[in-house]
Amino acid sequence: MAWQRVVMKTVVMTETATAPLSIAIALFDRVTMLDAIGPYSVLAGLPHSEITFLAEQPGPVMDSNGRMAVVAHAAYSEMVDPDVIVIPGGVITVPMSREKTHPIIDWIRHVHPGTVRTTSVCTGSQLLGAAGVLNGVPATSHWYVRDTLSEFGAIPTDERVVQQGKIITAAGVSSGIDMALQLVADLQTDEVAQAIQLNIEYDPDPPFNSGHPRCAPPAITEMVSAGFAGALERSGDQAS
Amino acid sequence: MAWQRVVMKTVVMTETATAPLSIAIALFDRVTMLDAIGPYSVLAGLPHSEITFLAEQPGPVMDSNGRMAVVAHAAYSEMVDPDVIVIPGGVITVPMSREKTHPIIDWIRHVHPGTVRTTSVCTGSQLLGAAGVLNGVPATSHWYVRDTLSEFGAIPTDERVVQQGKIITAAGVSSGIDMALQLVADLQTDEVAQAIQLNIEYDPDPPFNSGHPRCAPPAITEMVSAGFAGALERSGDQAS
Repeated sequence: MAWQRVVMKTVVMTETATAPLSIAIALFDRVTMLDAIGPYSVLAGLPHSEITFLAEQPGPVMDSNGRMAVVAHAAYSEMVDPDVIVIPGGVITVPMSREKTHPIIDWIRHVHPGTVRTTSVCTGSQLLGAAGVLNGVPATSHWYVRDTLSEFGAIPTDERVVQQGKIITAAGVSSGIDMALQLVADLQTDEVAQAIQLNIEYDPDPPFNSGHPRCAPPAITEMVSAGFAGALERSGDQAS
Repeated sequence: MAWQRVVMKTVVMTETATAPLSIAIALFDRVTMLDAIGPYSVLAGLPHSEITFLAEQPGPVMDSNGRMAVVAHAAYSEMVDPDVIVIPGGVITVPMSREKTHPIIDWIRHVHPGTVRTTSVCTGSQLLGAAGVLNGVPATSHWYVRDTLSEFGAIPTDERVVQQGKIITAAGVSSGIDMALQLVADLQTDEVAQAIQLNIEYDPDPPFNSGHPRCAPPAITEMVSAGFAGALERSGDQAS
């Protein structure tokens, strides 16, 4: 039909006229993988974009549980001007952002001025903080370490997704899905975000109401806090 | 302190007394990766368990977008008696379950009688159906293909997580997180599931209400349906 041909021609012309939106998801050893894969699963539905997984070097990157590896396409240093960066977290980011020697921190500092959006999930915001991009910026993180963002000059904010200008930080782990849907609506349209949400059937229905200290049973919050404290202590030992 | 030593000793004795719960997540070329990684991210928090990623052969397995690969630890054939199996989906499962030649189908048929729980996410239930384990069983899938489960003798059920005895099927993509939390509560305790939910801060807050045809704008449902139909057609071409 004639109108279909017209629409297709318009789309093709638009797509050849501009480069695809380049999205870099930056992995590192002991990353919490859902922080990266939640946003990936949403952003992969974004028309006219290309996603690249980065790491210190190309190849498999092991996660925080030591049971899952995702293959990075390229080294951080190979991608100098991504449009969007997604920085996932993991307990290991806490010693990483204290020591400031990991190359991801220099890379964030280097590419951030040129991005369209700089985003993080969970304790990925610790790495943004260590790179110096959160000074004076309202930001969030995993609830257990959120307040420590003030050490980087950030303004800790207890919301699931916090956007200030081009910087978007998300809360713990699973919040990356919500963040990425907001990012899609922000960069393209509400309709594209709604279509992606329907495609991944994101109609959440957790069997418990225990996803935030606000609603979790206090004994559960105490137990998870103790577990987090122990993991932090061990990760510090490993990194030093 | 003395009580700490006692607790630790008890834990060690329990753990040496029984083998860990073995969980197999079975990947295949063109899998929808969040179907696998959602449950992984929950089940990795299950005490005294071990997760293994399987595929036709060990090594990287590419996802449905062709932009992400997860490394499989072993071949299906190497794991003959997993306690829990997780079968993710992807558009490709539709031709796979029609043709019934993919080795994952034989593997499911072979291991299912010995599992404690047999689970699927999204169109992974098509593979369970092709393996003959859904006959007379209420089950779900991604909303777009849910009703076709009747071709395998299943009873299509429009719920996010459907459990019948030891078989648990979940709806599209992101529903694997809800399914896995229910599975943890089912295998261990509500408290363990609540702790994992709090740890991954699963306090969902999508920016739109568009995760199911029941609530999505009709034009969005129409658009996603058309996209799914096209992808199905292409996947059939690729598989044949």
